Amino acid sequence: MKIVVDGMGGDNSPCEIVKGCIDFLTESKKEVHIYITGPQKKIEEELEKYQNNNNITIVDASEVISCNEPPAMAIRKKKDSSMVKALRMVRDGEADAIISAGSTGALLTGATLIIGRIKGIKRAALAPLMPGEKGPFMLIDCGANVDCKPENLVQFALMGKAYFESVMNISDPKVGLVNIGSEEEKGNELTKESYKLLKEENINFYGNIEPRDMVSGDVQVIVADGFVGNTILKAIEGVSSLIFGRLKEGIYSSFKTKIGGALLKPVFSQFKKDFDYREYGGTPFLGVKGVCIKAHGSSDAKAIKNAIKQSVLFYDKKVIDKIKTEFEK
Amino acid sequence: MKIVVDGMGGDNSPCEIVKGCIDFLTESKKEVHIYITGPQKKIEEELEKYQNNNNITIVDASEVISCNEPPAMAIRKKKDSSMVKALRMVRDGEADAIISAGSTGALLTGATLIIGRIKGIKRAALAPLMPGEKGPFMLIDCGANVDCKPENLVQFALMGKAYFESVMNISDPKVGLVNIGSEEEKGNELTKESYKLLKEENINFYGNIEPRDMVSGDVQVIVADGFVGNTILKAIEGVSSLIFGRLKEGIYSSFKTKIGGALLKPVFSQFKKDFDYREYGGTPFLGVKGVCIKAHGSSDAKAIKNAIKQSVLFYDKKVIDKIKTEFEK
Repeated sequence: MKIVVDGMGGDNSPCEIVKGCIDFLTESKKEVHIYITGPQKKIEEELEKYQNNNNITIVDASEVISCNEPPAMAIRKKKDSSMVKALRMVRDGEADAIISAGSTGALLTGATLIIGRIKGIKRAALAPLMPGEKGPFMLIDCGANVDCKPENLVQFALMGKAYFESVMNISDPKVGLVNIGSEEEKGNELTKESYKLLKEENINFYGNIEPRDMVSGDVQVIVADGFVGNTILKAIEGVSSLIFGRLKEGIYSSFKTKIGGALLKPVFSQFKKDFDYREYGGTPFLGVKGVCIKAHGSSDAKAIKNAIKQSVLFYDKKVIDKIKTEFEK
Repeated sequence: MKIVVDGMGGDNSPCEIVKGCIDFLTESKKEVHIYITGPQKKIEEELEKYQNNNNITIVDASEVISCNEPPAMAIRKKKDSSMVKALRMVRDGEADAIISAGSTGALLTGATLIIGRIKGIKRAALAPLMPGEKGPFMLIDCGANVDCKPENLVQFALMGKAYFESVMNISDPKVGLVNIGSEEEKGNELTKESYKLLKEENINFYGNIEPRDMVSGDVQVIVADGFVGNTILKAIEGVSSLIFGRLKEGIYSSFKTKIGGALLKPVFSQFKKDFDYREYGGTPFLGVKGVCIKAHGSSDAKAIKNAIKQSVLFYDKKVIDKIKTEFEK
């Protein structure tokens, strides 16, 4: 398998990106060749720090797309950027998957414009996996699309189902619709209309789900308009970091509490594991004709390594073929 | 001041409701008379448990509105319900404020239909106060309205400002717009249009705010469509209860962790205080011609006591007059 990694995406590029690639190759039993896009010299300097760098090829790219640029314009103008070059490799069949920790907007726009959507898909969607009590769940869409139509939400449901069945080995996952009440007639125009359509689909439709019940993990695929999904995601991020920050502060506040913190270390380690975005790798971008993973902007080597792992699963489990088949029906 | 409390609202009615009223009166230095609506005998039985019950009058009401009834129908049909009777007392000037832990939908519909909106207000809004790092913030609207128009969001901003200035003594609070990015051009049709209008208003407009930054408390009044606000609120509820639940589980998992938990007790107590919805009382319903507080459905006596306290502030600080003045401009 050939994977291209955007060497200049994210806050910790290129150093953590390159380390993540090296760490992946060191652990991986699968034959994988990694291409890293970015300024030849800069990436080379990073690569030279490691022994095990045989299966890596640098693809020279002089430009970088920043998070502050208007996405569509950046993709069109910066043809020699690490991101555009990586996207083109997937389009041209030179790579089977792309991972980038760069600008979300640019990656989504670029993947849609350069790689292209799967036939029949009206809108591709960002679909992060999140930790639930009984197992992970997927919230789709989380920000690729705003002002969605009911048919978009139905497509998200089908794509999420295909991903869950292939990658997570859960057949016929429960599909829920984010809403502000559980009854069918609850919600806004979009959810009321979407409910009707989802009920008719060949899916295991759970009905409406309120965000407070999402974390139970009872429902695996949760569909929402991208604006709503994104605000939920960011609310969860904000409140978790507030709670963990306060907890840390409290533990460091006195000798007694420090001892308490030390005794609770195994609990906190488990917590960290359960709530660490890095464990989940990156966020699949579903609906385009290639394996595309958005890694978190603050990804370190571990997050990049896991994002690459995830792209391998995404590829090996033939998620794209599955979505294609679903939409040919 | 005269306050009417819906004696049959919420999961713990009437026992915790009555206790909350008693506790409030015991602590309060202000002269307040409380009316409790509900079946005469049932409320009487509860009241008899306490000594200090002189300033309480029972208003007999034979019916109860449940959370599963369609709100508008329930309000129209159940004229002898504890909620409708309480709302009518506010309408008729027999009470200055109403507190209910009953069905949110019924209370909002009832307050709008029976008490009525302030002149100029297109939609009244639910505006909970939430704990932020630097102080509380208000998220308005949190579920009273879906499919809002930009002008509704502007009205929410003005009402939130009036509340914050009067009750929290913060002049010219910062007003933010919930969005999925900080730049002006980000978001959906509603936020883009609302941004333009909010920029022109006579408010301290902060711009867009992403939900992960809400918890900082930097911005005091945060406006959103009620669907979005409600999902954010419920996501926060869900993830906090998941984290605290896991923490408790972890602490009880071994002797060592139990000791650790005991040493961290002061930290957890502070936590509980900071994140306890009961400390904040209830949620003001802004835009109607009376003081209306929605208490949490699972309110205990402490939550009810604090909700009554909040209604006193709401009344004493003349929030409604302030909103009226704002909308006469």
